[in-house]
Amino acid sequence: MSWVEDEAPGLPEVARLLAPHTGRAQVIGVTGAPGVGKSTTTNALIAALRAAGRSVGVLAVDPSSPFSGGALLGDRVRMGDHAGDGGVFIRSMAARGHLGGLAWSTPQAVRVLDASGYDVVLVETVGVGQSEVEVAGLADTTLVLLAPGLGDGIQAAKAGILETADVLCVNKADREGADRLVHDLRAAMNLSERHPDDWRPPIQRAVARDGTGMPELVGRLDEHRAWLESSGDLARRRTRRARAEVEAIAVARLRSRWADLSGSADLDDLAAAVAAGDSDPYAAAGVLLADLPDGAGP
Amino acid sequence: MSWVEDEAPGLPEVARLLAPHTGRAQVIGVTGAPGVGKSTTTNALIAALRAAGRSVGVLAVDPSSPFSGGALLGDRVRMGDHAGDGGVFIRSMAARGHLGGLAWSTPQAVRVLDASGYDVVLVETVGVGQSEVEVAGLADTTLVLLAPGLGDGIQAAKAGILETADVLCVNKADREGADRLVHDLRAAMNLSERHPDDWRPPIQRAVARDGTGMPELVGRLDEHRAWLESSGDLARRRTRRARAEVEAIAVARLRSRWADLSGSADLDDLAAAVAAGDSDPYAAAGVLLADLPDGAGP
Repeated sequence: MSWVEDEAPGLPEVARLLAPHTGRAQVIGVTGAPGVGKSTTTNALIAALRAAGRSVGVLAVDPSSPFSGGALLGDRVRMGDHAGDGGVFIRSMAARGHLGGLAWSTPQAVRVLDASGYDVVLVETVGVGQSEVEVAGLADTTLVLLAPGLGDGIQAAKAGILETADVLCVNKADREGADRLVHDLRAAMNLSERHPDDWRPPIQRAVARDGTGMPELVGRLDEHRAWLESSGDLARRRTRRARAEVEAIAVARLRSRWADLSGSADLDDLAAAVAAGDSDPYAAAGVLLADLPDGAGP
Repeated sequence: MSWVEDEAPGLPEVARLLAPHTGRAQVIGVTGAPGVGKSTTTNALIAALRAAGRSVGVLAVDPSSPFSGGALLGDRVRMGDHAGDGGVFIRSMAARGHLGGLAWSTPQAVRVLDASGYDVVLVETVGVGQSEVEVAGLADTTLVLLAPGLGDGIQAAKAGILETADVLCVNKADREGADRLVHDLRAAMNLSERHPDDWRPPIQRAVARDGTGMPELVGRLDEHRAWLESSGDLARRRTRRARAEVEAIAVARLRSRWADLSGSADLDDLAAAVAAGDSDPYAAAGVLLADLPDGAGP
């Protein structure tokens, strides 16, 4: 796993050896806005999955912050509940400072956990927005967490998070506003256009703090997995995921070449010319691409 | 502007003609979590800038949603305050469905508004997380909005939003919890490691709804701009921005080639082989790149 984070030179060889052993794990993305209780829910979900006899690999993808260089708070400490359990592997990953960031290293790490034989791989991300789109790209099932008091259902729709969800979970469902949030979410989901055959994301209430609703949440996630298999969508999603992964690696290699080029196609010189108004980005991109043939190989 | 969104074939020619006229505008990114009052603040900021005699171009970048195909709520309606003002241009842009998404089309649109002579270009994004990183990349100054009751300052730090901010604005500063939020933000900022010469992001209180604090906010933004110029950071940021822009265009062109390739390097076939465990993403990326020489030109 450190090799993945460090982009070790041996990684391509490892990927080649792992390939035949991948594809068995149920990959679940867990996401939601700060404050919904992502770490608590991930923790409770691990416990529910372990109670059902399944092994769990967890990737906690945090934006690396200058304040901490990684996870900021005591969230990870709570993950320590599972410290002595050999059926659980938990790893925090930094989101930045890599060639392709999340898009690059997370799928590789999922691949390692999958090939290692974990029944379920949970990928927990911090934040909403673009990062969710990425999680939706790499998971079989995207679980979106919400909680009352953190904006309403319409704001959730506005932030684009409903369309990425396969399963919705309203955490802190014992708090005031939970009924309203579930109602708003139902209304927003009903507004969306779906084919009759499409999966309709269920909304599960839970209180992750005490485990309420967690076995039911596991049931919802399994229902989605079963639907993915019966509909053929699992293969489609995984091909799409592989496509993004291949593209990310190819682009990362090109980027590192572009950063290293000398002569006419030096990206820094091109950028300085664009910033000064002496060139435009299209012309500069053309110069970069024209110089590729000598530098495009792996 | 429609050409930019539609990726019109004439865009490279337009970019060439605009290039000598760019670089004058003050480009300000406005971002923050759903519920902080981004549209209200943008609206009040426009009014304050107009009162100071400056023309304003606004790009509102919304994730396009299946519910709406764009902006969901009545936010844009309030922007109608400025409908009859020739010194204000407002345009909503869809974030998805493009070759390179935001990374691709937003910088081009900024370029158009800049060359058109607007004194200030405001880029308002919805959501937090990755999208903010992108805003930080394309703006001279990134204004991060926060509000009491939407999670605390530590959560803001956790979501990685403080490190991208050049100016922080606590909106709804008349509400309970505003003092606490300002206090937490100060504490979080003090924890961060900065060189003595570095810019220290100021925290401005405001009530955008009635315009309180908006002239002061304009002052903060101008102070940052002045600092950018005196420190030389403006040229560095703009070169970095141009670099990302050139790269995004080059990558978008490669992606469209990869999608169109036939024969051994068809990306879909490569992805299907990776998904099936018959290949691995590194090997597949190598095949893509090896096939580039015939297809890399502009």
